[in-house]
Amino acid sequence: MLPALGFLTSSLLESMSSVGIVAPLSHHFAEPLPLQNGTAIADYTLVYETYGKLNADKSNAVLVCHALNASHHVAGVYRDQPRNVGWWDNMVGPGKPLDTDKFFVIGVNNLGSCFGSTGPMHPNPVTGKPYGARFPVLTVEDWVHSQARLADVLGIAQFAAVMGGSLGGMQALAWSMMYPARIRHCIVIASTPKLSAQNIAFNDVARQAILTDPDFHGGDFYAHGVVPKRGLRVARMIGHITYLSNDDMAEKFGRTLRTGEYQFGFGIDFEIESYLRYQGDKFAEYFDANTYLLITKALDYFDPARQFGGDLTAALANTQAQFLITSFSTDWRFAPERSHEILRALVNNKRKVIYAEIEAPHGHDAFLLEDARYMNVLRTYYDGIWNNILETSQRGEQA
Amino acid sequence: MLPALGFLTSSLLESMSSVGIVAPLSHHFAEPLPLQNGTAIADYTLVYETYGKLNADKSNAVLVCHALNASHHVAGVYRDQPRNVGWWDNMVGPGKPLDTDKFFVIGVNNLGSCFGSTGPMHPNPVTGKPYGARFPVLTVEDWVHSQARLADVLGIAQFAAVMGGSLGGMQALAWSMMYPARIRHCIVIASTPKLSAQNIAFNDVARQAILTDPDFHGGDFYAHGVVPKRGLRVARMIGHITYLSNDDMAEKFGRTLRTGEYQFGFGIDFEIESYLRYQGDKFAEYFDANTYLLITKALDYFDPARQFGGDLTAALANTQAQFLITSFSTDWRFAPERSHEILRALVNNKRKVIYAEIEAPHGHDAFLLEDARYMNVLRTYYDGIWNNILETSQRGEQA
Repeated sequence: MLPALGFLTSSLLESMSSVGIVAPLSHHFAEPLPLQNGTAIADYTLVYETYGKLNADKSNAVLVCHALNASHHVAGVYRDQPRNVGWWDNMVGPGKPLDTDKFFVIGVNNLGSCFGSTGPMHPNPVTGKPYGARFPVLTVEDWVHSQARLADVLGIAQFAAVMGGSLGGMQALAWSMMYPARIRHCIVIASTPKLSAQNIAFNDVARQAILTDPDFHGGDFYAHGVVPKRGLRVARMIGHITYLSNDDMAEKFGRTLRTGEYQFGFGIDFEIESYLRYQGDKFAEYFDANTYLLITKALDYFDPARQFGGDLTAALANTQAQFLITSFSTDWRFAPERSHEILRALVNNKRKVIYAEIEAPHGHDAFLLEDARYMNVLRTYYDGIWNNILETSQRGEQA
Repeated sequence: MLPALGFLTSSLLESMSSVGIVAPLSHHFAEPLPLQNGTAIADYTLVYETYGKLNADKSNAVLVCHALNASHHVAGVYRDQPRNVGWWDNMVGPGKPLDTDKFFVIGVNNLGSCFGSTGPMHPNPVTGKPYGARFPVLTVEDWVHSQARLADVLGIAQFAAVMGGSLGGMQALAWSMMYPARIRHCIVIASTPKLSAQNIAFNDVARQAILTDPDFHGGDFYAHGVVPKRGLRVARMIGHITYLSNDDMAEKFGRTLRTGEYQFGFGIDFEIESYLRYQGDKFAEYFDANTYLLITKALDYFDPARQFGGDLTAALANTQAQFLITSFSTDWRFAPERSHEILRALVNNKRKVIYAEIEAPHGHDAFLLEDARYMNVLRTYYDGIWNNILETSQRGEQA
């Protein structure tokens, strides 16, 4: 419960609802990690952040998995970067749906990323040079394995919940199948049990833009002192179109002209062009091209039903978790129908599952945005998890 | 009516239903054409083809307008290129919906194209060097002006119909507004009264892929002996995704793997990747990059309601034609809702209009494909036009 607000300044209020200043942690794993491609990565580092406190019986840990261009920096800010706010800061913090006054939250940067965990820009121990395009192509399952090892290091035998949106949701779903006893709740938001041909097509065009950029140099651009910015830029622009809904784009940009008149040239006429190019330029400044390739491949490959002849019900048969599945009405990248597939397979398995389809205009991006109904669904679900933790711990005390 | 078929071989049958061997014609226009961008093109050539015969009172002429990557070669084959079949050969020919035994059909290559009419690869009379990116940015209305001049040359005061799909449909619609007395029927297929923000976004990403290809050289790649193939390839791949429906792509390609196994690399895993790359490669071999820029801009700029404060009803108020509007259920590029906008504006103006929404799985591309219901709609509509021509001509004889 909040204290009386009368004497609080708004900046105080703001800092109250944020985890505040955080610092990334890291762990080096010296044991090789066997990978789905048949090889192994010899040793690697995972960068992560934690918020809140692990309780005595270690029953309040929540793992937050990230999507394409995000990282371990889920909430809060860095001391020297007060504007670098975590990507899910509206979801995670004191008094927020995933309440860090109650839960111990972990954000982990996936292997192959460009935000600290071992990735293509790091030296390949065999050659001493950056991995580049020779960094192993990883899968969602590989990430989950590596995350489970981090959980071991942190002494977490079982997560209260594993949660993610989009590609993060795939990781949560994979957790429920790969480590059924290590996850009590699985929260899958704006995700899909597998990419459609159209999803793959968009990913492949984006990859082709990068792979054919002369500055890509077969992935070894680090040695050439260049970055395949043109390819990254186009890739991000394509991606961005699929993150927004048609209606949202129409509403936000419509056919608004930057100057009010057609320019009869190939500069910027429409505001939507300005917006997309800005997004592309920004992305090309900070994102690694090899990481983009890796992450889109992990998306394409995710298909847990594949080894069960396409039977998702069979794939989910050994899960033990309870599930919250959430989708957004205008998400055309991973439409509600894709969540229904997961839902049906869980119901077939008689799993406890809650499904929330949020009427929201913001397309796929909605999972990152503020929306009272969405936030309330998550808050209520986490309240339930918390009550279970309290009850279990009281039973433990009484016993 | 077809003759008895017993003794006809299938190849004979095929040749019967085709206009057969055709040859392109051309006309040089020495008068400058004023353009919407405020300049003029000094002189220019239009390449065109005709099928069937113009009747005595010149009342049976139909103009077929082309979309992005098509041309004047609407039907038939060339003597030296027997496999180069016109892009709408299933629609136009003897006994076909647009029956060349009855109608005189004209296909014209738009200005700025790369298939014969004056375009960016031709010499700028001012410099003697190819226009390149300095070819004027044209609009749908500019094309219609140039087509009207060709009609003058051919002695056609009024078209029985002007017809087109997609961008071709925009030209037909523009004809009905710009030359209301010169067009008795306006046939607009799989089109839209204006592009949405999402449509523009896809076009702009495609343009950015071309503009940032180092081989583009600011549009002067001709002088460098190179072609910005990488950019064209990515542009075409993006376009192609928007031409197919999500369901159709799922049906045709799904997640089918080329080798049955994941390759864990960045070559081809999925059949959809193979298909798209093939389409991209093929396109980059024959299409001109400057033309691609021009044509996508013409698409973006088309918005006849703009000078009427966004009021499409007002924009269509001076039309005199009768209309056939056709859309396809799974077209998400120019969805049926976009045709409804045209329909509503025509109904508001009390125009005679028939609307057909075809339940077809093939997305935007459906307008080019064989579909019995679609073809029957067009056949029936043209039969009606033909009956009117016969009645008018009989009245003329009786008078």
